[in-house]
Amino acid sequence: MDVTRADLEALDRADPLRALRDEFVLPEHGVYLDGNSLGALPRATPGRVAAVVEREWGRGLIGSWNDAGWIGMPLAVGEKIGRIVGAAPGSVVAADSTSVNVFKLLGVALGLRPGRRVILAERGDFPTDSYIAEGLVALLGQGHALRLVEPGGIVTGLGADVAVVLLTHVNYRSGAMHDMAAVTAAAHEAGALVLWDLAHSAGAVPLDLEAAGADLAVGCGYKFLNGGPGAPAFLYVAARLQERARFPLTGWLGHAEPFGFHEGFRPAEGIARGVVGTPSILALAALEVGVDLALRAPMAQVREKSLRQSGLLIEMVARRCPGLALATPRDEGARGSQVLFRHPEAYAIVQALIARGVVGDFRTPDVLRFGITPLYLRYVDLWDAIEVLGEVMAGEGWREARFSRRKVVT
Amino acid sequence: MDVTRADLEALDRADPLRALRDEFVLPEHGVYLDGNSLGALPRATPGRVAAVVEREWGRGLIGSWNDAGWIGMPLAVGEKIGRIVGAAPGSVVAADSTSVNVFKLLGVALGLRPGRRVILAERGDFPTDSYIAEGLVALLGQGHALRLVEPGGIVTGLGADVAVVLLTHVNYRSGAMHDMAAVTAAAHEAGALVLWDLAHSAGAVPLDLEAAGADLAVGCGYKFLNGGPGAPAFLYVAARLQERARFPLTGWLGHAEPFGFHEGFRPAEGIARGVVGTPSILALAALEVGVDLALRAPMAQVREKSLRQSGLLIEMVARRCPGLALATPRDEGARGSQVLFRHPEAYAIVQALIARGVVGDFRTPDVLRFGITPLYLRYVDLWDAIEVLGEVMAGEGWREARFSRRKVVT
Repeated sequence: MDVTRADLEALDRADPLRALRDEFVLPEHGVYLDGNSLGALPRATPGRVAAVVEREWGRGLIGSWNDAGWIGMPLAVGEKIGRIVGAAPGSVVAADSTSVNVFKLLGVALGLRPGRRVILAERGDFPTDSYIAEGLVALLGQGHALRLVEPGGIVTGLGADVAVVLLTHVNYRSGAMHDMAAVTAAAHEAGALVLWDLAHSAGAVPLDLEAAGADLAVGCGYKFLNGGPGAPAFLYVAARLQERARFPLTGWLGHAEPFGFHEGFRPAEGIARGVVGTPSILALAALEVGVDLALRAPMAQVREKSLRQSGLLIEMVARRCPGLALATPRDEGARGSQVLFRHPEAYAIVQALIARGVVGDFRTPDVLRFGITPLYLRYVDLWDAIEVLGEVMAGEGWREARFSRRKVVT
Repeated sequence: MDVTRADLEALDRADPLRALRDEFVLPEHGVYLDGNSLGALPRATPGRVAAVVEREWGRGLIGSWNDAGWIGMPLAVGEKIGRIVGAAPGSVVAADSTSVNVFKLLGVALGLRPGRRVILAERGDFPTDSYIAEGLVALLGQGHALRLVEPGGIVTGLGADVAVVLLTHVNYRSGAMHDMAAVTAAAHEAGALVLWDLAHSAGAVPLDLEAAGADLAVGCGYKFLNGGPGAPAFLYVAARLQERARFPLTGWLGHAEPFGFHEGFRPAEGIARGVVGTPSILALAALEVGVDLALRAPMAQVREKSLRQSGLLIEMVARRCPGLALATPRDEGARGSQVLFRHPEAYAIVQALIARGVVGDFRTPDVLRFGITPLYLRYVDLWDAIEVLGEVMAGEGWREARFSRRKVVT
């Protein structure tokens, strides 16, 4: 009962998200399986960005901070992202980078748990999170520590000294997804907070921060939200914590009265205190287009398609390329929206695929990563990608590519 | 010997920077005197941004991090800004916001002066600097303090406990400019470092960070560098301090080997450690266009025109609107590239001017601020602006505007 290309064509015809693909610019030839690293360009983005540049900036000049609503964009775009991640209104802002936001919220968390000095994190999460934690710990220099545990070791690693758990919801290198509600409950039971990194989750898998009892979260705008290279990130603080949340980065746009130019910082009410400096309006405008598109796709449909696509990819690779070892959970409940395989020649294989128009990416030391982006990925794309992958593996077509290194961004 | 419009027309004809005005999009009617708040749009920016969006992102997708040089942009754009501010090669990066960069470099400074716990700053500088210092001090909670002195009180305020002086080179509300070399020398003599905020200086006045013996600096991309609303800011660390500079924000792009995904943060060599998270490429591309334009204008010519224009503005206002009290130094050596006046009805006057196409801005409580941007401001523009200002003041045309408040960004 092998899958045929005709089967996949039928799935595409029946796909309720099918029309959304036309909203993106995609390569004419080849298959883009790296939307979990940099999402594709929405067709509406160039026009929106041009309008911001030429009309709002060029003609409106300084007046556009009010007239075009620029000043409200971190909150307005954050509000929309909040709907995607299941956050209550008034609990998300779009601002800064994921890394900077991790710093802010680790600072908030330590302030909320003053007697506790440990940040607990998993080895093997995307490194910026633990790097940022290291920097904060070194800055504080008061016995604070970052404690790294092996994957899956968070719950048993909880102790009375843990202020905050810093955890990526979907791991960038395995595609494995944590049970947000369960981990959060365990942490709360131990008296700790959890800071979730949603970089590979927002727009990719169903999220309900409120139902999970989440405390704090950050996420990325340029992956499944299709906000463009280096798009602003976002941060979430649960409403119940906002009033006591003391941000370590206290810039003028997080002030209660930024245009009062008062001496002395007084934080804005609510989540607005999470903004620091003047935000890039061009970047926020591009992000908003991607977020608006994501809002058009019911998450249940996105998830259903994502799991079906990742399942098919796993199945087809197992049959066609048995030399690739699956590194992603087979259990659908524990799988994000990417599929990863291990192979000693992963780097060269990925290069050979890219040369043939199939764009996935390599993660050191031996991981091939394929992103599943249901908003614009067709089922037949998987077929075509596997055809190329099978040829590369069978003919060892990767040998020519093994000697040139290439950097790509997570 | 009153100045006439013909005199100003003659100055425009002789202006060596005259051709640069054509490189900007400017209002057909009216005069834009707020380029110190948001610089005007360079004509080349829409095309460059569109190319980044449509070609590099849309078609190049993830490959553009290498193929289009995205990954090198914080350093490449920083390098160009370095030429504008008199920094040695390899000592500037373009990244994050001014506020975030103040935080980074205050953290660096405290690390470089471990026995000292005071940040010394001037009352009346743009508030985000002292807000950020407050946030850092509160986070550290180890006897660190922000000490505010009255304007002009920095040198006498220096003491053995001062780790770093945090000072805006050109004050946002008076236009007064500090003597960078003198203040730096005094701070060094007292064993302290200086962190200069160049928000109203970069691209506006001659700067030579190296000759001044500067330690640390930050600055803004959206004012005189014409990088667009909320453009990335920049930061400078003198080469002699870089190796020992421990940044408190240690994100993955500041790592020595960001694509190695190693456990444990190890800072990049040199100024690259000043980068934190993934930068907005759209914002950096727009900034680069503005920076390239600024590089085409020899700073000696910019300064000469700026001082002549601000001098004429001061002179004409004194004659035509004696009710406006000059709040900017008459001494050219102590003047930045803006002219400020005080009036009890400053807010309403600015509103009446804006309604008539003359865009300056208001700073609480009673300041009218006019930015001098020699790259695109003509001498006759000053004449035309003063005509309108004179009419508004004579007819009390501001009375209609005094009841509506409007926010504008510094």
